[in-house]
Amino acid sequence: MTPLIDGLQYANWSEKIFRQMREGGVNAVHVTITYHENFRETVLNIERWNRWFERFPDLIFQGRTAADVTLARETGRTAIFFGSQNPSCIEDDIGLVEVLHTLGLRFMQLTYNNQSLLASGCYEADDAGLTRMGREVVAEMNRVGLVVDMSHSGERSTLEAIEHSTRPIAITHANPAGWHSALRNKSENVLRALAESGGMLGFSVYPHHLRGGSACTLRDFCEMIARTADLMGIDQVGIGTDLCQDQPDSVVEWMRVGRWTKTIDYGEGSKDAPGFPPMPDWFADNRNFGKIADGLQATGMADADVAAVMGGNWLRFFDKSFGANKGPEGRLSEAAD
Amino acid sequence: MTPLIDGLQYANWSEKIFRQMREGGVNAVHVTITYHENFRETVLNIERWNRWFERFPDLIFQGRTAADVTLARETGRTAIFFGSQNPSCIEDDIGLVEVLHTLGLRFMQLTYNNQSLLASGCYEADDAGLTRMGREVVAEMNRVGLVVDMSHSGERSTLEAIEHSTRPIAITHANPAGWHSALRNKSENVLRALAESGGMLGFSVYPHHLRGGSACTLRDFCEMIARTADLMGIDQVGIGTDLCQDQPDSVVEWMRVGRWTKTIDYGEGSKDAPGFPPMPDWFADNRNFGKIADGLQATGMADADVAAVMGGNWLRFFDKSFGANKGPEGRLSEAAD
Repeated sequence: MTPLIDGLQYANWSEKIFRQMREGGVNAVHVTITYHENFRETVLNIERWNRWFERFPDLIFQGRTAADVTLARETGRTAIFFGSQNPSCIEDDIGLVEVLHTLGLRFMQLTYNNQSLLASGCYEADDAGLTRMGREVVAEMNRVGLVVDMSHSGERSTLEAIEHSTRPIAITHANPAGWHSALRNKSENVLRALAESGGMLGFSVYPHHLRGGSACTLRDFCEMIARTADLMGIDQVGIGTDLCQDQPDSVVEWMRVGRWTKTIDYGEGSKDAPGFPPMPDWFADNRNFGKIADGLQATGMADADVAAVMGGNWLRFFDKSFGANKGPEGRLSEAAD
Repeated sequence: MTPLIDGLQYANWSEKIFRQMREGGVNAVHVTITYHENFRETVLNIERWNRWFERFPDLIFQGRTAADVTLARETGRTAIFFGSQNPSCIEDDIGLVEVLHTLGLRFMQLTYNNQSLLASGCYEADDAGLTRMGREVVAEMNRVGLVVDMSHSGERSTLEAIEHSTRPIAITHANPAGWHSALRNKSENVLRALAESGGMLGFSVYPHHLRGGSACTLRDFCEMIARTADLMGIDQVGIGTDLCQDQPDSVVEWMRVGRWTKTIDYGEGSKDAPGFPPMPDWFADNRNFGKIADGLQATGMADADVAAVMGGNWLRFFDKSFGANKGPEGRLSEAAD
């Protein structure tokens, strides 16, 4: 049986949500544990997760390898894989890549909208690609098994990350810009390069990434997935809902503003709509993944392909991505970890 | 009497050097207190300076305003003005600009060779100019009276900083690239824009910035100053020796490598010459400023102009730069602080 895996969520976590994950049959989730938090603050967030793992051992546990997804399915729990949406957690210190991987970090975005020390974000006017430090850090991430995520990065930085990385990268939560034009959605050029390199795209349900926003229909969303699978190959796509359930609007302000400006930046929102947008009615929480699977079937997609999109592809990607790069001369071994 | 001011030093400070400053009649020095150190580490460096101020009150004290230069001259001491060669000290936090200014920081480079969160360094292959955060931080530096220093920045970032800053900026330690081609030296385009905006250039004695390196003659150095004064105007230039006296080579490695790479980066050096280069024989320490003044006179420069270059220009720049931007509607008042 293929697992159900969500490639990105950032919820205001609670027992309620953990129970909804179980009701929805979600076997694994890549959760954002940090945005602009520095290393010490990120460790505080890990400590918070440790307390949740301690309190709810029957519902969740920390995932570190692909085998943990299988363990989660077998034991009726959800495996939680940590990720960062910005490299703030490594500060200016390449040595923190390995330290954070040891603490369980499995994905790290090189940028979150703005320029970082590593690459350029999709909101900068110009994108000069991977920086000197960016090239070093990508190599280190490749070595330890920390996945490069370019969901919020600029076009040139993304293409350079795909090219420079010796292991496949991910865009955990975004949609094709050709379907819905948005700074955060990706060009066909990027999607092709990503697929050719063995990388993964997770389709986002965040309304700003959807054609029609919150009013986007399940059918339109699923048709878009089917067409993108035609372009990229059915093996290179999954789900990355970007579900931000139960978050107060103060959180979206932190995500957008961090500590980099004294004024308000509305990001994908606007002065009139500064908060989190309402989710589409067909995806309110973790109990709704079945609707997406049904929607994919309704497009005419084969059962095996639906299963691949709903989790099988992420599982294979996890399996080859999270272990140390042990092969001879720095080449990726076939069975990492 | 015009004061003697050095626009940048980064020595391995000691009582010996403080006494040499007195012997050399140095009234004020902009000292680098931090490179890649984060905020907390920068505060540790300030604590170290506080102990030196406490131990050697007859030799040095912390300078905060231009008036402190006069006080230093009148009391036979050297005023120490703090600066940072990278924005690591503000981390990702615009609020630290004001905090560090309150602690006495008066200069901050937006970059040190590499890409920062604010702008691009002169060692990056591409320079996309000021970032979104860079524009915000420059405005905040303008507001509180923290001088933008672009000594180690890329060409486009430097031009954009000059244009975006509402107050004159500085290049505290560099020379014209037309005299000696080096990534760290500045194009005529940059020097003209800097001068037109009321900014300051400090001439560097660091051998990698000199024609002929350590063998550069005093005469060649002083002729270069005279020609650059012709280009920029005599009021826009000063000295910024970049004296790194008594530093072990481990320090130049920290300056170049910081925490951004696991390999060695030789910066302006090379595998065969990885350490600090030997200083020219005419400038070994703070007792040698008289030789530069004499050398400038020997080029035919008028006494008043020599005095301006040796400190008068920096004093005027300090006077207009270190105070809060108090004028109406955010415009710079005539007598800031």
